[in-house]
Amino acid sequence: MSEIPPSHPRFHSLMMRERLVEGLHAGLCTETGLIAHGRGEALDYLLGERTHPFAVHAIEAASAAITLANHPMLSVNGNVASLAAAEMAELAKEFPRIGIEVNLFHGSSERSRKIADRLRSFGAPTVLEAAGPDSMVLATIQHNRKYMHPDGIGKADVVLVALEDGDRCQALVESGRRVIAIDLNPLSRTAKLAHFSIVDELTRCVPRLHVQLRADRTLPSEVLKQRLHGYDNCRILSQAEQVLRQGNVASK
Amino acid sequence: MSEIPPSHPRFHSLMMRERLVEGLHAGLCTETGLIAHGRGEALDYLLGERTHPFAVHAIEAASAAITLANHPMLSVNGNVASLAAAEMAELAKEFPRIGIEVNLFHGSSERSRKIADRLRSFGAPTVLEAAGPDSMVLATIQHNRKYMHPDGIGKADVVLVALEDGDRCQALVESGRRVIAIDLNPLSRTAKLAHFSIVDELTRCVPRLHVQLRADRTLPSEVLKQRLHGYDNCRILSQAEQVLRQGNVASK
Repeated sequence: MSEIPPSHPRFHSLMMRERLVEGLHAGLCTETGLIAHGRGEALDYLLGERTHPFAVHAIEAASAAITLANHPMLSVNGNVASLAAAEMAELAKEFPRIGIEVNLFHGSSERSRKIADRLRSFGAPTVLEAAGPDSMVLATIQHNRKYMHPDGIGKADVVLVALEDGDRCQALVESGRRVIAIDLNPLSRTAKLAHFSIVDELTRCVPRLHVQLRADRTLPSEVLKQRLHGYDNCRILSQAEQVLRQGNVASK
Repeated sequence: MSEIPPSHPRFHSLMMRERLVEGLHAGLCTETGLIAHGRGEALDYLLGERTHPFAVHAIEAASAAITLANHPMLSVNGNVASLAAAEMAELAKEFPRIGIEVNLFHGSSERSRKIADRLRSFGAPTVLEAAGPDSMVLATIQHNRKYMHPDGIGKADVVLVALEDGDRCQALVESGRRVIAIDLNPLSRTAKLAHFSIVDELTRCVPRLHVQLRADRTLPSEVLKQRLHGYDNCRILSQAEQVLRQGNVASK
């Protein structure tokens, strides 16, 4: 696999596959995380493996929400760490007010620590772990996903979740937080429940969000508020669904 | 995962996921096989996780082709062995004229042997391994996939491949063999190149094929030839594509 030439039309997708297999071997993600990634691959294929205008609009709104937030947080799980540890860390390095918290579906403290170490190795300044002696909990869900670090998502007003399951997204929304979701399925519960749903592949959209955050940092807050006011997540999801249904179910 | 109740609406899909993870741990399939399975899961989701009439028609034609064949073979790889070793072995046990051959994309003799042992443990009477000292080769492809056992696919006139890559399917077709493909993507190269494309989930369609073979065993060959004459794989694929595009991109 590592001999795939960069000129290969599906080079990026194949590299992501390799990152994930390495993540499994490094103890960052799980076997079921690999299967979940395959589902995402199929959806991205239908989207033509490119960032569509509906994703750009969601990224712009997400950037405004993060810029206006008092305490924005990025939630990172095993697949996100395997695929985009560098991209997430770069973002947190340039914007130290945006924290990172590790939250796992199939949790273990060892895996959580490995993910935190990986993020730190790419320069992330602050990485918290959700499950710990001082954890707060989201009341409406079970399992390890309910935990929040009191200095992280516990006090966050805006949370970005990526490749997240519907239960946790719902609990975060019900807790009154604003939720940004990165999810390739526009009809997933996660995408439908979140306030800002970025229907795009993770490593394509995080650098775009990074650039947008840089541009938005110096904008008057009134401009950002106006952008949020004009944003309609239902419309974004319906555009994404339309593209998905018309998309190229192409050869493998 | 093994605590999923049978009443769960996605019980079958979750059980298949578990079989595949066990297959990885048992050395039958690979990490990239897990990702490929996830792609299939997404497509099956779009198909509503059920066997459609277009798949039933393809199964009927495939059964006629196998029944009329001089030397029909089932080609088994790591994902097929992980998901459907029992179903494949049951079929070969009742129809000893249908042979099984192990052929791997990411091949190793150890993995090939493990897969053969697994099939034999479910009662498959004859299991050949493609790669060996006496192997024949398909001229137009590279890698381990080019190998054929001289007493198996080497002399086969009809070959059933499941979850197969496009290159090998193409080479088998170009070699003059009749190819039956089980593939959830109706626009994959494999599905487009095969003579009979069963767009359905593996463990749903193999038992159906088994029942159909039993029914066809006593039919006059003229009836089976007529069934083949009336079969149009392009039409089947276009019906499958239509369902896929209208299908339920449902919540996860």
